[in-house]
Amino acid sequence: MAHPQTRSFVAAADGFRAGTDTPRAFLDRCLATLGEIEPQVHAFVTYDAASAQKAADESTAHWRAGKPLSPIDGMPVGIKDIIETHDMPTEMGAGYYKGWRPNRDAASVTALREAGAVILGKTVTTEFATLPSGPTCNPWDLRRTPGGSSSGSAAATAAGMIAAGLGTQVLGSILRPASFCGVVGFKPSLGAVNRGGSHDGLSQSVHGALAASIEDAWVMLRQIVDRAGGDPGYGGLIGPTETPAAQKPGRLAVLEMPGWDKAKGATRDAFDAAIDRLAGAGVEIRRAKGSAAIAKAQAALDRSMPVSQQVNCWEARWPINSYRTLNSAGLTQFTLDKLAEAEAMTLAQYREALAERAAIRALYATLAAECDATVTLSATGPAPIGIASTGDPSFVAPGSLLGVPAISLPLLTVEDLPVGLQLMGFLDQDAPLIGVARWVQENLSR
Amino acid sequence: MAHPQTRSFVAAADGFRAGTDTPRAFLDRCLATLGEIEPQVHAFVTYDAASAQKAADESTAHWRAGKPLSPIDGMPVGIKDIIETHDMPTEMGAGYYKGWRPNRDAASVTALREAGAVILGKTVTTEFATLPSGPTCNPWDLRRTPGGSSSGSAAATAAGMIAAGLGTQVLGSILRPASFCGVVGFKPSLGAVNRGGSHDGLSQSVHGALAASIEDAWVMLRQIVDRAGGDPGYGGLIGPTETPAAQKPGRLAVLEMPGWDKAKGATRDAFDAAIDRLAGAGVEIRRAKGSAAIAKAQAALDRSMPVSQQVNCWEARWPINSYRTLNSAGLTQFTLDKLAEAEAMTLAQYREALAERAAIRALYATLAAECDATVTLSATGPAPIGIASTGDPSFVAPGSLLGVPAISLPLLTVEDLPVGLQLMGFLDQDAPLIGVARWVQENLSR
Repeated sequence: MAHPQTRSFVAAADGFRAGTDTPRAFLDRCLATLGEIEPQVHAFVTYDAASAQKAADESTAHWRAGKPLSPIDGMPVGIKDIIETHDMPTEMGAGYYKGWRPNRDAASVTALREAGAVILGKTVTTEFATLPSGPTCNPWDLRRTPGGSSSGSAAATAAGMIAAGLGTQVLGSILRPASFCGVVGFKPSLGAVNRGGSHDGLSQSVHGALAASIEDAWVMLRQIVDRAGGDPGYGGLIGPTETPAAQKPGRLAVLEMPGWDKAKGATRDAFDAAIDRLAGAGVEIRRAKGSAAIAKAQAALDRSMPVSQQVNCWEARWPINSYRTLNSAGLTQFTLDKLAEAEAMTLAQYREALAERAAIRALYATLAAECDATVTLSATGPAPIGIASTGDPSFVAPGSLLGVPAISLPLLTVEDLPVGLQLMGFLDQDAPLIGVARWVQENLSR
Repeated sequence: MAHPQTRSFVAAADGFRAGTDTPRAFLDRCLATLGEIEPQVHAFVTYDAASAQKAADESTAHWRAGKPLSPIDGMPVGIKDIIETHDMPTEMGAGYYKGWRPNRDAASVTALREAGAVILGKTVTTEFATLPSGPTCNPWDLRRTPGGSSSGSAAATAAGMIAAGLGTQVLGSILRPASFCGVVGFKPSLGAVNRGGSHDGLSQSVHGALAASIEDAWVMLRQIVDRAGGDPGYGGLIGPTETPAAQKPGRLAVLEMPGWDKAKGATRDAFDAAIDRLAGAGVEIRRAKGSAAIAKAQAALDRSMPVSQQVNCWEARWPINSYRTLNSAGLTQFTLDKLAEAEAMTLAQYREALAERAAIRALYATLAAECDATVTLSATGPAPIGIASTGDPSFVAPGSLLGVPAISLPLLTVEDLPVGLQLMGFLDQDAPLIGVARWVQENLSR
């Protein structure tokens, strides 16, 4: 199997402007790939090629007339299947929602349509964006997991069936599959993208992008937020319409994520080599050894998984408890067990978890005085074999707990498979993080 | 028409314990009233007396066995019709939602059922909890508005058809109808009650109670929050299981709300007399004249209506824009016009409104050093004649903008009609506010 190839829509826009390429032709290339590999990859729950082609024809006309609705007019995208669409079922990877059709589009989907994006289909998610996993396979090696819970958006983007997909992350659900599938995974600051009409109402959850490039991720999210805003009460993704320019960081702080020793051999070597190259390019690299603030924050992040799990557990009690009453047969035993765990929790315990999360966030925030961004691995290694598990989220859970912007860049290769380099920024400083990410990418992919 | 009489469930609990009364008998008294006056009042969109009686019989058995599920086991309640229920349609006062049935109960409804509350029916709301108004009339005078948007919960509670109703407030939708209908209206701190499955996702919106008494309001919300928590990321309503005891305030600050001069004659006299009585009972009364902090906060609150309207306008763009695309005939011209207004706004303007709101909140927070609570009118006067308008929310909009706990107590009478005395507290200090409210009620109703 040849290495899968992503397709950047933003990079193709010059061709649309020049008339040498069209959104319809772009889509047809995506569909050709889809026809070839989707039967093995299973990235989509539903897709509608005919409607997509019709929409792409309209976009083509807009570009031809020199009047695209937006920079993403005609961009083929996939929508994680916990996000509501009126014209395709929204099933959430759950028996309970089999065939369910909402009477509206989610806020993000409404905005994508207004911007002219072509919604090719709904992408596979794990059940209610937690576990168990869906049928999707990793296009780099069909025996391996694509990661979860934004499995289908990652796999479809990796294979070039779409330019980008919407994902959501409450623990590791954007950056983990991005790492495993070799695509860009961008989780913006908490509240940066309106989650209305998506079934990821948890307090750490945020919408983001699995994308062919940093530019595709930024431009797509930017266009959504201009039309739909962020979550109510939040100012929404902050930054320019165009992708922020590459910006060399003065200082980067290396963070050893919880369970760091799980990253072994070739993965650690690849990471260390990347850090060496950044240092060689003149970036000051700081570490826990040598900075009390970094040491303290890094130690605090060790609690990212248990604290996130407590928070998520309590918050996910509803609506699962209502579903159980109405049709428990529509839920897996895993989900019923998680509910029982939630019901054994008290409100007081939840409040303690929130307080601990706030304390960890405050410690991390002090790093803004130490570095321009933090850098680490997105995963303990390449995608593991088997699709029943979606892999270990330990290295990306801290970004979820913190609510800060985080991005996984497909810059490392281990055993001929992709591994993500992760950069984390500071709350609402998404644009500066993107600037650093572009510079890092330029310098490491040379 | 005799004055309507509320029915406190909490006050009846001694009878349930002693075996001299039962939840079923309590419900039947509610149903007798309902049979008599609902045909004129129109508080309910749907109700199901038979199911309620069956549930009340179960509650009766629990109390007889000395094992009620909770203090509200058997409490007849109404659910504002923007909150999802699986067994009754959820129509949101909107043609678009005619006959719509969700596949779940909202978080608050799930918790109420777990606590044994008897859900008698869905109560009338204005369209999408904004305007235009529904068919509900004020049980004190059928020619008058009950206020909105929690119109039905207020009217049904006032008339004793239920002990309490769930309401929501983003501008004035709990305290205004409470004032007009002569019931207790309690809007807790922002985020205090889980809004999952309710269609009031705006950043100022909060669930609260229209209730026969302070105790019914507190105990009902407390039982919900113990089971469902607050909004994700919030610790939920803070305070004891039992209603906080009456607590004499040392100092109260009188706030003259925006457009204060709209309160005239008998209404102003009734308010001034109440303040005089509180002073006479030994409470230090502070005012803008005499405190720079109060003067500054009071002046800032003058912007409550326009800032709230800007915030709400932007945030309500979705899902109305999606509904318009799918079936604009299901929306009123009012709602379509509001959407056009939202679409004329930019994200930058919304951010400015958020920043102004934050500044006003900070000014108000300084009053915690000046007083135990602030006191004012809930409305400019009694319910106006006519049901097409739900009345003026100017005096309760500040509490919504601030996100602080606010309560309207039916302690004033003007032209033989109720007017609410409003107390506002400080963020997450709901229990102390309730203590002050009980003391004020005891001292003013003597």
